[in-house]
Amino acid sequence: MEVSTDCVVFGYGIDGLKVMLIEIGASELKGKWALPGDRVYVDEDLDQAAVRVLKELTGLENIPLQQAHTFGDADRVPGKRVVTIGFYTIINKMDVRPTPSKWADAASWFDVNNIPQLTFDHNAIITYALQKLRNRLRHSNRRTPLWESVLPEHFTLSELQHFYEVVLDRKFDKGNFRKKLNEMPYLIETEIFQTDVSHRPARLFKYDRKTHEKYAY
Amino acid sequence: MEVSTDCVVFGYGIDGLKVMLIEIGASELKGKWALPGDRVYVDEDLDQAAVRVLKELTGLENIPLQQAHTFGDADRVPGKRVVTIGFYTIINKMDVRPTPSKWADAASWFDVNNIPQLTFDHNAIITYALQKLRNRLRHSNRRTPLWESVLPEHFTLSELQHFYEVVLDRKFDKGNFRKKLNEMPYLIETEIFQTDVSHRPARLFKYDRKTHEKYAY
Repeated sequence: MEVSTDCVVFGYGIDGLKVMLIEIGASELKGKWALPGDRVYVDEDLDQAAVRVLKELTGLENIPLQQAHTFGDADRVPGKRVVTIGFYTIINKMDVRPTPSKWADAASWFDVNNIPQLTFDHNAIITYALQKLRNRLRHSNRRTPLWESVLPEHFTLSELQHFYEVVLDRKFDKGNFRKKLNEMPYLIETEIFQTDVSHRPARLFKYDRKTHEKYAY
Repeated sequence: MEVSTDCVVFGYGIDGLKVMLIEIGASELKGKWALPGDRVYVDEDLDQAAVRVLKELTGLENIPLQQAHTFGDADRVPGKRVVTIGFYTIINKMDVRPTPSKWADAASWFDVNNIPQLTFDHNAIITYALQKLRNRLRHSNRRTPLWESVLPEHFTLSELQHFYEVVLDRKFDKGNFRKKLNEMPYLIETEIFQTDVSHRPARLFKYDRKTHEKYAY
């Protein structure tokens, strides 16, 4: 039986939530879009495999990935049996510059609401990973918040609200969102304010790991 | 590469939370305890494999299982590469009668707080599945509640509290637990009361799927 990993890399940006896809450059699937994914070597752990495969195909390095779900229907790949472990992560699009290599002809961001028809069950893998990402954001009080490595170190509450709105694909009323913040004692207000704006500068906030560990673990 | 499934079946009972283990009856591992698990056939889906393997080794039938996590460290099984998909479920111990077969010499319940040293990484698989089970109970408002098929159709609030206490391994203050119930509009009070008790009979409650679908989806 073959075992592979497929990586769902979500990219957060001011223009919405994207996912990284590659264009297959070889085989009878040439020209099709797919998730970055490939076989696991016999001597590497699954986590290592996911990180390696992502780097080989897209150039993205040092991206922590988490398991979403394992897909193993008998007929998911025509003609052979491949069980694939779907991994996912979210990064700030600005932090990376994808560079396709190996058998990838292109590596590009696609809007999560506008994904083309992909190879095999890759659309279903994205759907599952997106659900997982959203649940993670909704129920994250015991873990490092999803936005910790995506937003800058200091950010406004409007920027945080935008992140929630983009990932959860809904709008929050400003007042209701501020109430949500009470659930996050690890969100700390600083004495720093925006400087490069024409309107009244907003206060900047930051994530405080120590407070989080104290309250949530 | 080999692919297997391992099943973590939690058993709820008045005496606490248990997990089903089998005693290996063959090979150099004879006499060791392990999770019910075995190889996936090339022509079956992962979910089917988990259900089949559980039935073959323990006699337990029609048990729905969910993926917890896939374990695939290169060295998890000495001498060969086996990736295993860990599945889990919770049932009422009273509903089943385990009957070991195939290469299992015994199938028994063990208290989750008193698991022996198992083969391979099976202790870690249980730890992970238990965490998953608890998170599922804590954040279950969008899914069928974990206790729906474990408790009888009509139950007292004390019985529900006991289930929470056993699974989460903590005690709830009665008043605080009653407050928690407000988060569950799908928990409906009936006009039925206990009949076979010497103290004042308690009111019975039930899960209402229709209300749940209306509020939570």
